[in-house]
Amino acid sequence: MKFRFINARILTMEDPLSIIEGELHVDGEIITYVGAALEKVDTRFDQIIDCNGNVLMPGFKNAHTHSPMTFLRSYADDLPLQEWLFDKVFPLEAKLSGDDEYHLAKVAILEYLTSGVTAAFDMYYNPHLTAKAALDLGFRMVCLGTVTKYRESVAEMVEAYKSINGHPSSLISYQLGFHAIYTANEEILKELKVASDELNAPIFTHLAETQSEFDTSMKEHGLTPTAYVDSLGLWDHGGGGFHGIYVTEDDFSIMKKHRLAMVTNPSSNTKLASGIAPINAYLEHNIPVAIGTDGPASNNALDFFREMWLTSSLAKLQTSDAAKVDALDVLKMATVNGAHMMRLNNADVLAPNKYADIIMLDLAQPNMQPLNNIMKNIVYAGNKTNVKMTMINGKILYYNNVFYLDETPEEIYANAQAITERIKAEITNG
Amino acid sequence: MKFRFINARILTMEDPLSIIEGELHVDGEIITYVGAALEKVDTRFDQIIDCNGNVLMPGFKNAHTHSPMTFLRSYADDLPLQEWLFDKVFPLEAKLSGDDEYHLAKVAILEYLTSGVTAAFDMYYNPHLTAKAALDLGFRMVCLGTVTKYRESVAEMVEAYKSINGHPSSLISYQLGFHAIYTANEEILKELKVASDELNAPIFTHLAETQSEFDTSMKEHGLTPTAYVDSLGLWDHGGGGFHGIYVTEDDFSIMKKHRLAMVTNPSSNTKLASGIAPINAYLEHNIPVAIGTDGPASNNALDFFREMWLTSSLAKLQTSDAAKVDALDVLKMATVNGAHMMRLNNADVLAPNKYADIIMLDLAQPNMQPLNNIMKNIVYAGNKTNVKMTMINGKILYYNNVFYLDETPEEIYANAQAITERIKAEITNG
Repeated sequence: MKFRFINARILTMEDPLSIIEGELHVDGEIITYVGAALEKVDTRFDQIIDCNGNVLMPGFKNAHTHSPMTFLRSYADDLPLQEWLFDKVFPLEAKLSGDDEYHLAKVAILEYLTSGVTAAFDMYYNPHLTAKAALDLGFRMVCLGTVTKYRESVAEMVEAYKSINGHPSSLISYQLGFHAIYTANEEILKELKVASDELNAPIFTHLAETQSEFDTSMKEHGLTPTAYVDSLGLWDHGGGGFHGIYVTEDDFSIMKKHRLAMVTNPSSNTKLASGIAPINAYLEHNIPVAIGTDGPASNNALDFFREMWLTSSLAKLQTSDAAKVDALDVLKMATVNGAHMMRLNNADVLAPNKYADIIMLDLAQPNMQPLNNIMKNIVYAGNKTNVKMTMINGKILYYNNVFYLDETPEEIYANAQAITERIKAEITNG
Repeated sequence: MKFRFINARILTMEDPLSIIEGELHVDGEIITYVGAALEKVDTRFDQIIDCNGNVLMPGFKNAHTHSPMTFLRSYADDLPLQEWLFDKVFPLEAKLSGDDEYHLAKVAILEYLTSGVTAAFDMYYNPHLTAKAALDLGFRMVCLGTVTKYRESVAEMVEAYKSINGHPSSLISYQLGFHAIYTANEEILKELKVASDELNAPIFTHLAETQSEFDTSMKEHGLTPTAYVDSLGLWDHGGGGFHGIYVTEDDFSIMKKHRLAMVTNPSSNTKLASGIAPINAYLEHNIPVAIGTDGPASNNALDFFREMWLTSSLAKLQTSDAAKVDALDVLKMATVNGAHMMRLNNADVLAPNKYADIIMLDLAQPNMQPLNNIMKNIVYAGNKTNVKMTMINGKILYYNNVFYLDETPEEIYANAQAITERIKAEITNG
């Protein structure tokens, strides 16, 4: 399909950030033109879309999530993290079977589309099922290893790395990862190091999320979580961490040495009372920060506007300085930085030859009016009612509140509800 | 008009909170039935609305805002509060003229409707203009005195109290208030005390919003802001404060003695780096808390879902306890507590003889799926795409993303944009 978007305000996300007025063309999976309005075009387009002055920008990159965890959404709120994780989350997760994750991930993908998210970095067991959900709905998914001492083995991770990265579609890919140092052991992490060396691949993990994780690491290893992972050579090929709240100056040096990126998950960290990641310090150290929703069990929403607003505003609160972590830095985290961390270098900005992963933001909503500073207002006042269109890989999947998919949302909801009821019944019945 | 809503999940907000399945009737401005589905009804209805299992609940009460400040939305972000207020906000406000506030408030009212807000407690100059905007759009507005040493006098406030409260429509009313202790002086506050005694009326004000306000009050008066206002007898007829971040145990005693309520404005307080109000301590002291967006200049959105989520989640972060300030407490703050503080005792819950200020929340959105705990999920995952209908005083003003008003949003936006451009040009040209 060839699309021509006219009368657009285009935020390409190329430096220096600015909004240009003009048009954008898509041919197949790829952007072919971004620039001033053209008087005459030679191409024949399948669809011409008048943006009416609305914003086109790259879709948001959800750089940390657990998509299939929709079944746990609002199942166990208002509990401390350790109790929530070990007493509520893990027992229900153990009841997942068959292709449950395939159906549960689809609910999350619908939510991403309504939130302007065009790609997710997804850490969960059975990544083949999540990848298949993404393929079937046309979503871009980077699956991630979830090695633990309880479930996924390094061998399973390596198998997933090879098979998902070997798939011909550009929509799905895979990176190495383990759940966290507190759900692994040294033997497994050493095995992981070997795999990383063999594949020459970066490693990602939950890192320094809670005070308790930090204290335990200091006690057991005499090292911060960041230094402990580094001591095993796990970042010799780069990678990064999720959360990154409890970090030291030495940890920042480790991150710089290995060119790591960090993903902040402010909703989850706030609601679970984990803490506030020192985003301003990351920026001062020039460590790339990306943004993630975390999973629907902890968050409970997969709403990128909430995460962007919090990334800036919590930094202002934390530093007692309303000038810190400007909205424009947050827009870069939400798009370019996420794409680069997820190795989606062709989905970072709007430019010729990049993937057509594009969202249209509706300025004719009252929260954007009157127009003063559109870029800042996307971060400070934007919400999901502003998402007018979500296009991935050159296909419009969501437009004017309607999904354009092979399945209806109602079918997807019904499957997820049935799985959720079954699992809760199994727990109740022991 | 007589409405019959069928197949609804109804969250009446009466204690103890629960969701009942059934139907709800509206006749004119008033709710006439809430309860189980009826096999047979004698009334003839003008409209029967099938809720398809969606939620009906009382509209949110925005208990602190400055509606006409839409012209300052995203005009001056990323600045410290004092600089933002004195160098940016006040100079532009001084350029307002004619019926500017009338047009600017209408943008905010559109935003309230999209956010499920059915009433606002509005502090701004020229309240007649804001009240007229509310009347013309059918919105419920409680205007509030904004006495300062620079602008609104006590005499002007008393005139507005009498004329707005004397208006025959139930949609508009007025309460006494002054901007803050740092924009008043003792002579004015003593005048205000006399007016409050004569009218036997409560008083509301910005209170204890910043550390600097607290420190200045201690230095100038030897009293906390709360104790200083109390020392002048300003709360002898009750009332309350907005923000309430910097408060002491003695301040809580003052609040209890005068049965004051406090409105928290978490977005504004976070983004302006003012601090986190100790909501858990308010609850432990049984002091009623309501929720407000603050104005679009500071926030920048008027999004009640953001405020509800923050009210709970920031309290969890502040206390390092994810179990604190439960979502159900937040739902009460957002509806019943706000209504009572604003003296809208007939708009607090869904019950016969109450005003038909009702919202319908769409559960067929991915952020609400699958269904586990609907009440908690409204707070933790809800967003504006869930607002399917906003009814005020028995009239549907917003339904399925369309406004039902005498004016189009585009007309309202154009007026606000023209005013904003004019004011910015006046500032640029000196």
